Parts: sequence; C-alpha cells; structure tokens
Amino acid sequence: MSDLERVLAEVLAEVKPAPDERNKALELFERVKHLIEENLRLPYDYTIELHGSVAKGTELRGDIDLDVFVLIRYEDLSEAWLKENVVAPLYEVFRRVYSSTKLKYATHPYINIKVGNYEIDVVPAYWARDISEIRTAVDRTPFHTRYVISRLDERSRDEVRLLKSFLKGVGVYGAEIKVEGFSGYLAELLVIKYGSFVNVIRSATSWRYGEVLVIDGSVDSLTASKLRRIFRAPLIVLDPIDTRRNAASAVSAESLAKFVAASYMFLENPSTSFFRTSRLEPAVTRTTGQQLKQVVEATDRELLGVVFGVARGTPPDVIWGKLRSVARSLLNLLRKYGFTTVSYLVWSDEESEALLLVTVLPRELPRYEIHAGPPLGKRSDMAAYMAANSRRPGALGPYVDPDGRLFFLIPRRFRYPYQVVESYVSSLRDLELLYPIKVLRDAAEVESYVAQKSSDELVKALERVVLLRLL
Amino acid sequence: MSDLERVLAEVLAEVKPAPDERNKALELFERVKHLIEENLRLPYDYTIELHGSVAKGTELRGDIDLDVFVLIRYEDLSEAWLKENVVAPLYEVFRRVYSSTKLKYATHPYINIKVGNYEIDVVPAYWARDISEIRTAVDRTPFHTRYVISRLDERSRDEVRLLKSFLKGVGVYGAEIKVEGFSGYLAELLVIKYGSFVNVIRSATSWRYGEVLVIDGSVDSLTASKLRRIFRAPLIVLDPIDTRRNAASAVSAESLAKFVAASYMFLENPSTSFFRTSRLEPAVTRTTGQQLKQVVEATDRELLGVVFGVARGTPPDVIWGKLRSVARSLLNLLRKYGFTTVSYLVWSDEESEALLLVTVLPRELPRYEIHAGPPLGKRSDMAAYMAANSRRPGALGPYVDPDGRLFFLIPRRFRYPYQVVESYVSSLRDLELLYPIKVLRDAAEVESYVAQKSSDELVKALERVVLLRLL
Repeated sequence: MSDLERVLAEVLAEVKPAPDERNKALELFERVKHLIEENLRLPYDYTIELHGSVAKGTELRGDIDLDVFVLIRYEDLSEAWLKENVVAPLYEVFRRVYSSTKLKYATHPYINIKVGNYEIDVVPAYWARDISEIRTAVDRTPFHTRYVISRLDERSRDEVRLLKSFLKGVGVYGAEIKVEGFSGYLAELLVIKYGSFVNVIRSATSWRYGEVLVIDGSVDSLTASKLRRIFRAPLIVLDPIDTRRNAASAVSAESLAKFVAASYMFLENPSTSFFRTSRLEPAVTRTTGQQLKQVVEATDRELLGVVFGVARGTPPDVIWGKLRSVARSLLNLLRKYGFTTVSYLVWSDEESEALLLVTVLPRELPRYEIHAGPPLGKRSDMAAYMAANSRRPGALGPYVDPDGRLFFLIPRRFRYPYQVVESYVSSLRDLELLYPIKVLRDAAEVESYVAQKSSDELVKALERVVLLRLL
Repeated sequence: MSDLERVLAEVLAEVKPAPDERNKALELFERVKHLIEENLRLPYDYTIELHGSVAKGTELRGDIDLDVFVLIRYEDLSEAWLKENVVAPLYEVFRRVYSSTKLKYATHPYINIKVGNYEIDVVPAYWARDISEIRTAVDRTPFHTRYVISRLDERSRDEVRLLKSFLKGVGVYGAEIKVEGFSGYLAELLVIKYGSFVNVIRSATSWRYGEVLVIDGSVDSLTASKLRRIFRAPLIVLDPIDTRRNAASAVSAESLAKFVAASYMFLENPSTSFFRTSRLEPAVTRTTGQQLKQVVEATDRELLGVVFGVARGTPPDVIWGKLRSVARSLLNLLRKYGFTTVSYLVWSDEESEALLLVTVLPRELPRYEIHAGPPLGKRSDMAAYMAANSRRPGALGPYVDPDGRLFFLIPRRFRYPYQVVESYVSSLRDLELLYPIKVLRDAAEVESYVAQKSSDELVKALERVVLLRLL
C-alpha cells in the first residue's frame, strides 16, 4: 500500500457514515414524509422525495442533511402561492412536532428543522416532467439526483466522499457566497468524469483559468473558447442535465487556485491534514496571538481590518456578499495608495458581527511619491496637471523621466495602512445591513479582538492569512 | 511691450553676436581657406566652403564655430584616401600655424583647431552635385546650408538664435549622444516651419510622442502613422532636402518631453531664466551640498551612483553612449528589485572619469516581498515554482491572491539601493573603455565626490536631479 493509498483509506474510514447513521436518516425522512402526507391537502398532484447527498449516497459522517422536496404538479405555481398553500401550513404542522422548526425565505421559501445531528430542509418545488419545464433552480434538483444516482456506484460514491472532504479541508466546499467554492453536485460530476478522487485532483493540476469540462468526452478548442466567452467563469463544467448551465459558476478564481495548488501539494506529499472530517481536523499548529503578531512584524507586514455590525435578520448570503464587496473595494483602495495586500479574510457570526482583515506590505510608505503626468499631446491636459501640482505644498517638479513622462514628486497622502482603512470606512455608504463599528489599526488590536471573539473558525482563518497556509 | 516680448528682446540682445565678432570669424575663415588652397594639391576638382551656423547667420554670441568643408569631386573617395591625401597633409600645414591643431577620427576624419574664442573644424567630404549622390552624413551638410540660407531672412535668423538659446537653457541642444537633443539644423527647420520662436514652442505644447512634422504643409494621419512605423522615434521631422531622413532622429523621449514641458512653462511665466546665453546663466539658486542632502532625505529618497574610469583617448560619443547604456541597465535593475528611479544624471570630464548618479525611492524596502507564481495550467511550471520556493529559507506560502494567482512571501534580496548598485557593478562586463572605480552608496558619499570634482556643470546637474528642476 502506497502512502497515498494509506492516507485515502484512513480518511475514508473517517468520512463514510456507519450504516446505522444512514438508516436513522432514512427513518427520519419517512417520518417527515408521513407528516406531510397526513397534513398537506392540495388540489394538485404532489409527491415527496428525498434529495441531497443522502439520496445520492454521497453523504459525509457527522454532516448529514436531508433535503425533503415536495414536488407539486401545478403549472401556475408561484412563490406567493407556495408560501400560502404549502410552506405556511407545513410550518404549523412541524412546529408542533419539532421546536427547532424555522421558516426560511432566501431565494426560495422553505422550512428548516434541526433534529439531533440531522438538519432537514423541506423545500416545495414545481414537479417538472422534463428539464425543459423547470422554472427555478430548485426545480432542477430532482433531475440532478436522478442523474448522479444513475452514474455512481458503491466505489465511486466513496470517491465523492473523499473529494468533498478534501474540498472542505482546503476551505472551498460549498457554492454559497461565503465560500464561492465547489458544490456537492459539482464534486459528484467531477468524480463521474474522472472516475476517482485521485484522478480528479491529478487532472486539476493541469486545469487552466477558464478550463472547460464536459462530463462525457471533451470539447474542441473552438467550442471551448465560445463557452468561455458565454460563461466568463474561472471554471466551466457543463451541467449534463442542462448544458446551458455552468455547474461550476460559483467557483471563484481564488477557490479554483486554492483547489489546484492543494491538489498539487497533496499529490507531492499525501497526508490526512488536507482533509476535514469529523475527527481529522486540518493539522494546523495552534499558534498563539503573540506568535502571529511576531510573524506579521518579521515580514514587515501590517495586520489590520474593520469590524462591522450586522442588522438583525440579514440573510447570510447577503452578509457574505456585502463583506466580499467591501473587501474588494478596500483591496483596490490599498493598491491605489501603494500598499500590497498579501492576504485577507472575511468572517461573520452570521448574526450580529462581521469582520474584514488584511495583511499588507509595507508597514510604512515613503513620505513622497511620483505623481505621473498625462502623455504629451494635449495642451489642456498638461495645463491642468501643471496647475494642480505646482501649487501643491511640498511638491518637487515638474520633471521628466527617461521614458519622457512628466511627473511631480509629491507628499504622499497615506503613509500607513490604517489611514487608508479609516479613509475607506468614512467613505462607506449604504450602511443599513452592514455598518462599520471599529477599525482595527494594527496587529495588536486585531489580536485582542480575535481573542475576545473566541471563535475557532476565526482563529484558524487568521492563522492561515498570517502564516500564508492554504490548510 | 508684453512680458514675453520684453524677455525675448533682452535675450536676443545677449545672444546676437556683434558685427565685429562675426566679421572676425569670416576673416578667420578666409585665412584658413587660403592656407588650404596654398597647400592642398589634389588630382581632382575641389572647393572650400564655410558651413555651420556662421554660414547660415544663426550663430550665437560667444559660441562661434567654423565648419570649413573641403569638398572634393572624386567619385571613389574613401575614408582611407581622405586620411592619407587630405587630412594628414593639412594637419601638418595647420600644426605649423596653430599649436592647438588636433587630428580627430570620430565617425569621419577631420581637423580641429582652437583660435581664441573660435573653434574651427576642417572637414573633407565628397562634393556631390545632387543630394542623390551623397555617401556619408557629412556630404549632406552643404545641401542643408543652402536650404537654410534660402529659407531664412534677417528676422527669422534671430528667431533661430532665440530657439537655440532656449534649447541650451533646457539642456536639450545638440544631437550628440551626450545630449540626445535638437541639432542646430533642426532648430532652423522648426523656425522655417513655424515662422518664429514663440510659434515653435506654442506648437510644441501640442506635440505628442511620435509627432510627425513636414516643413511645408502637413501630412495626413495615414501617412503619419506609416512614417511613425518607419522611423520609430519620439519626434519625426522630415528633412526637406532628403525626405527619407528624420532630421530629429537624435531627439530622445526625455529630451522631447523636457522641451515640451519647458515650452509650456515659459509661455505661462516668461523669464530669461529659460535661456542660456554667455551672460544669462539659468537662474538656478546655488544650493549647498548639505542642503541637497537634506532635500534627498526629506523626500525619503536615496542619492547614489557609480564613478567610472575612462580609458585614455576614448571618443566622447563612445563615453556618453556607454554611460547611457549602463544607466539604462542600472535603472532596469533598480526597478526589478522594487526601487523607483526618480531622476538620474550622467556626467563625464570626457577624459578620465565618468559618473552615473540616481535618486531613488524608497531608502529602504520591506524585508519581504511577494513572489508571484505561474498562471494555472502547466503542471511542470507549478512544480518548478513550488520546488524552488518551498525550500527557500524564510519563505511563507504557497498562498493564493484574490485573482487566483499563486504566490510565496519571500525574503527580499536587496533592501537598500546601494546593494542593487553594488550587485550591478560586480556584474558588469566589457570594461575596457569604461570601468567602475567606486560605488557612491549614499547622499553623503555623492556630496563629497561632487565637491571634490569642482565642476560647475556637474554641480548644476546634481541640483537639477535632486530638486527636480528642468532648468
């Protein structure tokens, strides 16, 4: 047995649910199904089906969610109709049985119930006869389930489990905005295409940005570049049940590169530390806050950020979406003012607080900077440039560089990264859902904030961005 | 009288030679001509002509050079033949009369004589009947002289004097490699085209990089872009006596931009300080070395450089050419290692020493830097990158930036500009004519070197690059 095989066997033993765990899940589904059948009276045909990883046999131990679909054959079904006639009455039914029952209205109304270690989503959808009939993304799920079941056998279901656990270990599992990574369905498609976990990651080391994959066969380069223009995504995996759709559209460039790099590194040095399982947590050395601060300083970086308040009831996808958008604009602003963002993290408790942290180079910029002028040719451009800069206090110039570009040497606006962050925070608008509470100006302030939060997820994320570890 | 008119009148009074100065020059030419006629016996027709600014009536006071051409109608004339049959015998003749007589062999053999304030070049050339017959650049001179004389009148000759004096003040007068600027002939062409000094500089403020000028009329944009592709120069002025030639080919992007910027600034604030004349030196404030050092430090720059030894007898054009080439490669190296060159100067006594000075930002770089990896797609590229960097002492990574690019954070090789300069100097090859003697590591070392040289030209040049003044 090679190192690689030994590692995979060890991981699989951890991630594959015991038959008992799976049977309990199926029993739970039967109970939920029965409750719905007993209570839901509709003037249309409907059926209750189990979807998600349990239905497909690709679920991970300790992480079993039941997706219970109520499929209704009513052509004029609308969101409002579903809320009134399905979700509201079922909510009343389940609330009497399970106190954890919650109404959810993200992009689609559904019911969420926690029972022990299991999480159940009851999702109403249109019962399409054919993929061409679907109206919303949820209507597509039954087709995905049937396709995956038809293409996976016992062995390849375990390969999916390995891949999902690897994606989790690398932090790129999940299509939600928080992660911008690989969905469970995408993991299943990749195993269907390549046959095994190892074949998937081996192939990934040759994927380029804008890679185009079809599950069966391959595409010629002309088609590939056409698809690249249509989908404009870092990774394009045509959905076999609906080829107008990119099953990898959620995958960001960052997540793709993390997956590819981790795939390469794992193949070089196979280790269980690449996987996240219920027992095998990624083998990060627990570094103290003091040690992290020392690493930040030894590399001449600064660690700083912004704490945001979150308005009550803001849906997680909205929180993460807004966080990513403020991160993007802060990174742009730091670059504009001469700082290089080495790494960043966004975090939220998904209830009341969110956090954006960056590590940047350098800790301090020179007092002066070049302010390049317009190219030659327009007298009015030159006039505006000369007028604006020759009056500037402390400016030296105009002068000409060896390429013939005019410039002034002017006092820099921001010498320290916290000045850019403070300026950014004071420029923020649209603060209803996410509003800045506090700027963490340096590594010391970040350390004490993170220590006080006592979130393992946050501590690990901080360790990654400071030590620059993918795992 | 406007400010502008007053300034121009004042400058013209300074730069226009007194009739006496000009008459003495013409008398001197007659003496030289007589000496040649008396002594030069050739089996071919030849004629002796005065060329250069005195012949064209565009000479500046205190800066009168006589270009005495010996034009020989011998179709098979070669450089070797000229040396043996013209230059060598004339050298013997002149040496007996003028002790300052020197033999010169730059691109073409000629004789140089200094008599009082006058400098005389005796240049043998082929006597072409028509421009199509010329073999070398010097053969073209008589055609230039005749063209300029035919197009300038008394008033416009003074306009040329103003333009030349302005070009001198801005440091861009001369087509030689030392300057990479505007030749006297180019100044004359510009006045012929635009009619007056002020019209030339007014037009210049709208010139763009790659401007195409013809003396009479204009070119359509299609022709202009064709000419731009042919000549590939920052400024293209078709030579009216030979339109396959760019009369502005010597003008560098840097010289062009200096001229354009100075033109704009002069028009905004007319002042005699833009001109260099025998009496009106550019009005630079004499700043002490200590003050310059303070400006360097206050702007967080470093001032440093290299002193070179020059092999005896190296022609000036070779010295300046080599200096410009080492400057270019040092600037590239500084950029590569993260330093921004704000300004630089090259200087030489044209005998034994040469100097390259730069001012750079910042004085110190952070200990660490980003080392970006290859784009995704080639496993072998990634393998090479990972192997090289994960073994590097002190490296953090691999990590992934928000655009999906792999990187390591690695210890920077050079934190201080003098380290780059020392590394550059030790990498220099081909050291026969120009060889490094000493690295001046900081502003203090530069100051003491410059003080000890006591060259006004060098002190002024240093002042320009530190204070970033075009004048």
